[in-house]
Amino acid sequence: MHGKVILEEAFDLPRFSQKARWWAGLFSPEPDRHLQEIMDLTDIRIKQADKHGVGYTILSYTAPGVQDVSDPKEAQALASEINDYVAEKIKGHEDRLGAFTTLSMHDPKEAAAELRRCVTQYGFKGALVNDTQRAGKDGDDMIFYDKPEWDVFWQTCAELDVPFYLHPRNPTGSVYEKLWKDRQWLVGPPLSFAQGVSLHVLGMVTNGVFDRHPKLQIILGHLGEHIPFDLWRINHWFEDVKKPLGLDCKKTIREYFNENIWITTSGHFSSPTLNFCMNEVGSDRILFSVDYPFEKFEPACTWFDNAEMSIADRAKIGRENAKRLFKLAAYKDSNAKVN
Amino acid sequence: MHGKVILEEAFDLPRFSQKARWWAGLFSPEPDRHLQEIMDLTDIRIKQADKHGVGYTILSYTAPGVQDVSDPKEAQALASEINDYVAEKIKGHEDRLGAFTTLSMHDPKEAAAELRRCVTQYGFKGALVNDTQRAGKDGDDMIFYDKPEWDVFWQTCAELDVPFYLHPRNPTGSVYEKLWKDRQWLVGPPLSFAQGVSLHVLGMVTNGVFDRHPKLQIILGHLGEHIPFDLWRINHWFEDVKKPLGLDCKKTIREYFNENIWITTSGHFSSPTLNFCMNEVGSDRILFSVDYPFEKFEPACTWFDNAEMSIADRAKIGRENAKRLFKLAAYKDSNAKVN
Amino acid sequence: MHGKVILEEAFDLPRFSQKARWWAGLFSPEPDRHLQEIMDLTDIRIKQADKHGVGYTILSYTAPGVQDVSDPKEAQALASEINDYVAEKIKGHEDRLGAFTTLSMHDPKEAAAELRRCVTQYGFKGALVNDTQRAGKDGDDMIFYDKPEWDVFWQTCAELDVPFYLHPRNPTGSVYEKLWKDRQWLVGPPLSFAQGVSLHVLGMVTNGVFDRHPKLQIILGHLGEHIPFDLWRINHWFEDVKKPLGLDCKKTIREYFNENIWITTSGHFSSPTLNFCMNEVGSDRILFSVDYPFEKFEPACTWFDNAEMSIADRAKIGRENAKRLFKLAAYKDSNAKVN
Amino acid sequence: MHGKVILEEAFDLPRFSQKARWWAGLFSPEPDRHLQEIMDLTDIRIKQADKHGVGYTILSYTAPGVQDVSDPKEAQALASEINDYVAEKIKGHEDRLGAFTTLSMHDPKEAAAELRRCVTQYGFKGALVNDTQRAGKDGDDMIFYDKPEWDVFWQTCAELDVPFYLHPRNPTGSVYEKLWKDRQWLVGPPLSFAQGVSLHVLGMVTNGVFDRHPKLQIILGHLGEHIPFDLWRINHWFEDVKKPLGLDCKKTIREYFNENIWITTSGHFSSPTLNFCMNEVGSDRILFSVDYPFEKFEPACTWFDNAEMSIADRAKIGRENAKRLFKLAAYKDSNAKVN
Repeated sequence: MHGKVILEEAFDLPRFSQKARWWAGLFSPEPDRHLQEIMDLTDIRIKQADKHGVGYTILSYTAPGVQDVSDPKEAQALASEINDYVAEKIKGHEDRLGAFTTLSMHDPKEAAAELRRCVTQYGFKGALVNDTQRAGKDGDDMIFYDKPEWDVFWQTCAELDVPFYLHPRNPTGSVYEKLWKDRQWLVGPPLSFAQGVSLHVLGMVTNGVFDRHPKLQIILGHLGEHIPFDLWRINHWFEDVKKPLGLDCKKTIREYFNENIWITTSGHFSSPTLNFCMNEVGSDRILFSVDYPFEKFEPACTWFDNAEMSIADRAKIGRENAKRLFKLAAYKDSNAKVN
Repeated sequence: MHGKVILEEAFDLPRFSQKARWWAGLFSPEPDRHLQEIMDLTDIRIKQADKHGVGYTILSYTAPGVQDVSDPKEAQALASEINDYVAEKIKGHEDRLGAFTTLSMHDPKEAAAELRRCVTQYGFKGALVNDTQRAGKDGDDMIFYDKPEWDVFWQTCAELDVPFYLHPRNPTGSVYEKLWKDRQWLVGPPLSFAQGVSLHVLGMVTNGVFDRHPKLQIILGHLGEHIPFDLWRINHWFEDVKKPLGLDCKKTIREYFNENIWITTSGHFSSPTLNFCMNEVGSDRILFSVDYPFEKFEPACTWFDNAEMSIADRAKIGRENAKRLFKLAAYKDSNAKVN
Repeated sequence: MHGKVILEEAFDLPRFSQKARWWAGLFSPEPDRHLQEIMDLTDIRIKQADKHGVGYTILSYTAPGVQDVSDPKEAQALASEINDYVAEKIKGHEDRLGAFTTLSMHDPKEAAAELRRCVTQYGFKGALVNDTQRAGKDGDDMIFYDKPEWDVFWQTCAELDVPFYLHPRNPTGSVYEKLWKDRQWLVGPPLSFAQGVSLHVLGMVTNGVFDRHPKLQIILGHLGEHIPFDLWRINHWFEDVKKPLGLDCKKTIREYFNENIWITTSGHFSSPTLNFCMNEVGSDRILFSVDYPFEKFEPACTWFDNAEMSIADRAKIGRENAKRLFKLAAYKDSNAKVN
Repeated sequence: MHGKVILEEAFDLPRFSQKARWWAGLFSPEPDRHLQEIMDLTDIRIKQADKHGVGYTILSYTAPGVQDVSDPKEAQALASEINDYVAEKIKGHEDRLGAFTTLSMHDPKEAAAELRRCVTQYGFKGALVNDTQRAGKDGDDMIFYDKPEWDVFWQTCAELDVPFYLHPRNPTGSVYEKLWKDRQWLVGPPLSFAQGVSLHVLGMVTNGVFDRHPKLQIILGHLGEHIPFDLWRINHWFEDVKKPLGLDCKKTIREYFNENIWITTSGHFSSPTLNFCMNEVGSDRILFSVDYPFEKFEPACTWFDNAEMSIADRAKIGRENAKRLFKLAAYKDSNAKVN
């Protein structure tokens, strides 16, 4: 399929090259290749896109990124630097590349302002933020965005009509010590990523964020970070037990998934799992993505292009849903014909 | 279908009646009914079983139970008391009721000894333990059973050839404060239960427990606590990234699920999810269960008896797999004809 | 779910009451009930619809109907009589009832003219025709509508922009003698219906009807009369073998299913089969239906309302797709809220 | 996966080489390759098997074969010739090749005798017969094997404890003229094959063959020739309508599929369809197969080896079920380790 749109695709800043190389050694069997790929924004990436039928890529700053910076000022400065950098880089490639805003999440108003700046000034397609914000003097605090003080930020997302991609980051501090240190191989894609994000987004549900901002659109990677598997069970406990006991949600979990949440295939190239999600979540809310350069274009695209599904669903998941969500009408997918 | 076997079915001690009533108020819209049901071991339960085609029930002490007792001596005393109590209660009902051993998990040898006592003396069918053991002076420590010092215990499980049911319990202490306190509606079945157990059992995988005890059989409730959803992703990261970087596992995650792990339907009465698990895990390793009295017999059994599947798979999941795993050959399922 | 639309819903003419009673005895264990239900167009039907959340019904004349009349004049007269009858009957119920045109299929121009008359004069929603038209002196001929002489008719369907429901009818004549007589229990829903319709519609595909009339919309009942099961195999043989050998189709079978074919749930209330069709055909092309009075409202609606799927797909399949296909915008589904 | 067993794998007689070449031109874009492959029994075939992890192949004579010979004597002579030929050919390859008996189906006793001869004398693994037997002076008669006079034959199958593979053949004679001539591209795998076999085997069900021979084992290719798609609908009509009206079957259609029927993947390499069949039919009754040389080893084996499923189910479908059904215990699948 040509003209696919992908949206969990990371880059890094050149000045962090050394750190990025060290970091790559922790999770990549080919750290040099990884370094080269994450530092490149346009060349390797567009060649890969051409080769594998990807028409449009939304770039985002790699995790843990700004969410790992516990000093608020430093975090905000870094976010702005990243946004200016990627804005400059994608100039002249507007037909192929867009970007998510990087944000410091120490202060809701500041985050809202930076988002507004990047969406209005640079045409960014929304924001991608890495789970909780590290904070506090010793860096052991975790800021969740599901509490009332974040309403001003969510209000801005809704006003600007851009989605917010809630991306994982590694557990840190005392939670890391208690849960993950002795089972470190589970940190990252095997388990901790999904556990962090699913807690956060379900916290947004139960703390009423979507009730107060019914137009807010949140994107989850990795086919929904485990939540689709448990929609029945979550729905049952919310409706039959938790609400009678006081949970104050206006809608059901299935309604939030129908009105506020999108899931992407990033890093989860399993046909039975995708089919299962198509049944539980619906193909109108699923978006193809790669998770490059942590995952490669070739297996992701070969899998998706050949996964057995209807033509309509392949078009939706591969391209049409993203065009609708990100208003890519202007995007000339001249080679966007479904194979 | 008649003759179903169920195995995540809780009871409580009469002397904790008051506490149980208070506790029930936290999660049950009908706390008095719950109290009555959890205190009953034979009467209501067998009537319900008769009504809904359940032939055999394996009882277990309710969560968090002994795993909430941070004092080792107190924990061990309570475990023994519970085991003696249920052994006495099920006498004369051997054709309908069995029990899992309750264990204090402060000391591996002690736990092994109590398991051996109950299996050999009382004919218990294995053990059911509630995720981590609360420990430490202030009760903030968490004992995981995935570290080498627990080998003596797992060795005993394997020798006795009985399975170990890893059941959830509530998060406590500083992890609760950090992650769950501000999103308390997610504590329990909606999220925290699955997150705790999946971390624990995958820790057993990556820390080599199944490699050192290849005959060990672990049971997970709730259709596998999210893990089946991510088998592709876990397998991909273990095989393609983590093992090249040093993860030292002899087998693949799919092999552990094929040789060491069973999942039950407790509390997860979703046909698409069950079908998905039948594809990912295989119907030979799935066991029907209710999660009574947190869930009710009627919806569980009506769902299972009518879920569309082959006759062979309904028989396996409903009864035959359990008969094989728990050596229930002697169990005369005179009314075990598949409807 | 309220506001469901259903579209394979049969009625009969009062003057055939005696024959209908005899006929009912062949396939209904409750022939008197059946007679009463098939003769009623408005009373029992609307009550049942109210009770089970059906907002709009498209009525059609029962099979084999006019397709069993081998005399062309008699067939045409009967078709007109039926159309006038149902048009009169549904007057005043336009918010709840519509109709498919009944057609004699002896002559393409005549069929086209009658369709045009009923669509323009009565506002009928398309046509429903029962597989092949019985023809010839001894009634042993079978007219298929997949040959070039039928282009004038298909052109009219496309021009009027109304769909054509290809409904089964019983095998007759020498084909009946050869294949079905000695295995008569397979006649009807168990096998012959699907075999007849799937041959006919795939004949339309391979004989180029959809290539010549790319806007033509065909509806198949019973979840597609077996074809979705074999989309992979049909596609493989068409593309890899038959086209290289001369099959002259412009598109793939999956494309015809994406652009020209709709399937309904009539008489096939199986969740795994529906889920499978959602994957192979896509939820945008599936329409809920009952097949009343051969099937009953209660099991059909209870099944559909409770089958586990996303909110969006339930809305589409239950109501929204039909509103789009039949331009039911004016239909005030005041009680159409999804449960 | 190594050690796979395949069982719908055709060969032809050398003396029919010219006819086979002509025939190949009707359905193969590479008729010369086809000719070479179908004439080879041991060389190309074993090389292909080695390359693609196939441990054991059960050969059968190609369709329509003896079922196209309307003269009884000629048919019987041909069947014996074929059986002697293949028996001679596989000598010395017993670890890799077996055969199904080819039968003339004009006379039940004669067919039974030939089957007995080949099973006892040659160790053949059962029989493979091509749908109906062409018969009658003008070759327009069709002998079905679902009538009482065939009981003697089915009794023999059951006694010998060998399965019977009901394979498709092309429609001929007046049925061809009426239904297929004007839509000839549907003849064969796209439609006619499945329609013929499903009518025949469901005729065996409704005519009581399995009730009179409860141990009889029938194999269907192509994932069950459409029937699994309609198990719900067939079951509903048999149980709720046809039996009350007189259908005299002892069991349900699901029970016959559980006790008497096996399906293979021959020519149907679709993961969603296989998954659907695993749910409806159960993985204990599904057998991998290729349908060589009409299909190729490479796509069949690559698909199956990579289709996402549990390890247990891949082992069952790929090898273990066949070892059980055909008593291949002696078969040393030295390279039968699951990849």
